[in-house]
Amino acid sequence: MSSSSAAARREGRAESASGRPPMRQALVAAAFRLFVERGYEQTTVDDIVALAGVGRRSFFRYFPSKEDVVFPDHERCLADMTDFLAASPEGAEPVRRVCDAARLVLRMYAEDPSFSVQRYRLTKEVPGLRAYELSVVWRYERALAAYLRGRFAGRPDGTLRADVIAAAVVAAHNNALRSWLRSGGLGDASTEVDHALGLVQSAFGAAPAATGPGADSEDVVVVVARRDVPLWRVVQQLEAVLGRG
Amino acid sequence: MSSSSAAARREGRAESASGRPPMRQALVAAAFRLFVERGYEQTTVDDIVALAGVGRRSFFRYFPSKEDVVFPDHERCLADMTDFLAASPEGAEPVRRVCDAARLVLRMYAEDPSFSVQRYRLTKEVPGLRAYELSVVWRYERALAAYLRGRFAGRPDGTLRADVIAAAVVAAHNNALRSWLRSGGLGDASTEVDHALGLVQSAFGAAPAATGPGADSEDVVVVVARRDVPLWRVVQQLEAVLGRG
Repeated sequence: MSSSSAAARREGRAESASGRPPMRQALVAAAFRLFVERGYEQTTVDDIVALAGVGRRSFFRYFPSKEDVVFPDHERCLADMTDFLAASPEGAEPVRRVCDAARLVLRMYAEDPSFSVQRYRLTKEVPGLRAYELSVVWRYERALAAYLRGRFAGRPDGTLRADVIAAAVVAAHNNALRSWLRSGGLGDASTEVDHALGLVQSAFGAAPAATGPGADSEDVVVVVARRDVPLWRVVQQLEAVLGRG
Repeated sequence: MSSSSAAARREGRAESASGRPPMRQALVAAAFRLFVERGYEQTTVDDIVALAGVGRRSFFRYFPSKEDVVFPDHERCLADMTDFLAASPEGAEPVRRVCDAARLVLRMYAEDPSFSVQRYRLTKEVPGLRAYELSVVWRYERALAAYLRGRFAGRPDGTLRADVIAAAVVAAHNNALRSWLRSGGLGDASTEVDHALGLVQSAFGAAPAATGPGADSEDVVVVVARRDVPLWRVVQQLEAVLGRG
C-alpha cells in the first residue's frame, strides 16, 4: 500500500482499488477506453470529459494535459519514493535501499495489471508518450541517484558510483517490468524484478555495503579464481591477502 | 575522426573543423548566437535563416525542426556508433567494446568544446530540449544494449545483463562528460571518461570476459568473505564450490 493511499484511508476519503479518487478514476477510465477505441491522437479532452460525464474544468483540476492522464500515478509514486528514501535508517545498505525504492514503482504497476498493460501498448505506439515516459523514468533515476550521492558523499567516485548504480537499478527494474508487461501482466511481477535487482546488488552491493559504522571495505576479501587453478594456489593467495598463514 | 567526416574528406567535400558542411555549420552558428542573445523560445527559424543569409528551405533540408539544430551531430554519431559495433571482432570483450563505442560520443563533444558547453547550458534551461536530449541518450543506450544482447544471446540473464550494462556505461560516460561541461570544457575530457568507464568495466567486465571460445562462466569461482571469518571456513566453502577436498 502506498503512503498516500494509506493517508486517504485514514482521512476516510473514498478511493478506488487503484488508489485514485472516483472522479479522477472515471476520467482515466474514459480516456483509456477512447485511446484504445479511436487512438490517442484522435481523442480530445472534450471527448474524454463527455464520456466521463464531467466538465472540462474537472479534467484540468486533475491533469495539466492529455499526456498526464496516461500516467496518472507517477507523481504520487515519485513522492512515495522520495519519502521512502528520506526515511531511510542511517545504517541501511544503500544499494539495497534504492532497490527497495524501485520496488515501489513495480507495486504501482502491479496494483492494476490490465491498466498497466494497456498503457504499455499505448506508449509503444505514440512517440510523444514515449518521450513523456523517458522524462518520468529520468526523474525516478535522479531520485535514487540523489539518495546515493548523499550516502556516498566524501567517498572517492561518490557521485559517479551513485549515478551508475541508480541507472543500473532503473534498467534492471524496467527490464523485468517490461517483460511482465509484454506477457500481458500475467503471473507475479515481483519475482522477476527481485531477480533483476539481485544482479545489480551482486555487482555493486558489496563495496557500498561496508559503509556503516564500524564497517570498512578492508573487512571484506574478494577472491576470484579460475576453476582450473589448483586449490592450494587459491589458499596461498587468500593467506597472503589476509596476512595469515 | 568520425567515419562520416573521413568519407567527406575522401570525396573532397569542404568541411568545417566541426565536421559539418559549411551551410549547415553557418545555420548552427547563427542559431546558437540567437539562442544565447534572445533565448531559445524567442528565436524563430526565420530569425536563424535571416542571420545565416540563406532561405527557409535550406534550413529544413538540414534540420526537421528548430530542436534538431541544437543537436546537429547526434545522428552522425549514432550512425558511427552502430557501424563501430557492427564491425566488432568476434572475440572482442563485449563490455570493453561498448565502453569504446561510448567514447565516440565523447569525441563528438570534445571536437568543439565551446559549442558543447553552450549547448549544455541551453539544454539545462529549456525543458523541451532536455526531453529531446533524453530521447537521444535513450537511442545511444539502445544501440549499446542491442550489441550486448547479441553477444549475450542464449546466456542466462542475457538481455537483463545487456540492458543493465548499457545503462551503466551511459550513466558513467555522462557523469564524466557533464563534469567536463560544467567546468567549461577545460582540460582533457577523456581522462575523466576513461576513469568512469573503468568503474563499469571492473563491475561487469569480469563475467562477460569469459565468453570467448573455450571459456565459460562456470570456469570462474568468486568468493567473498569478511575478514573476521576464519580461514578454514573460507577454504571449506571454496572446497564445496569447487567440488574438491
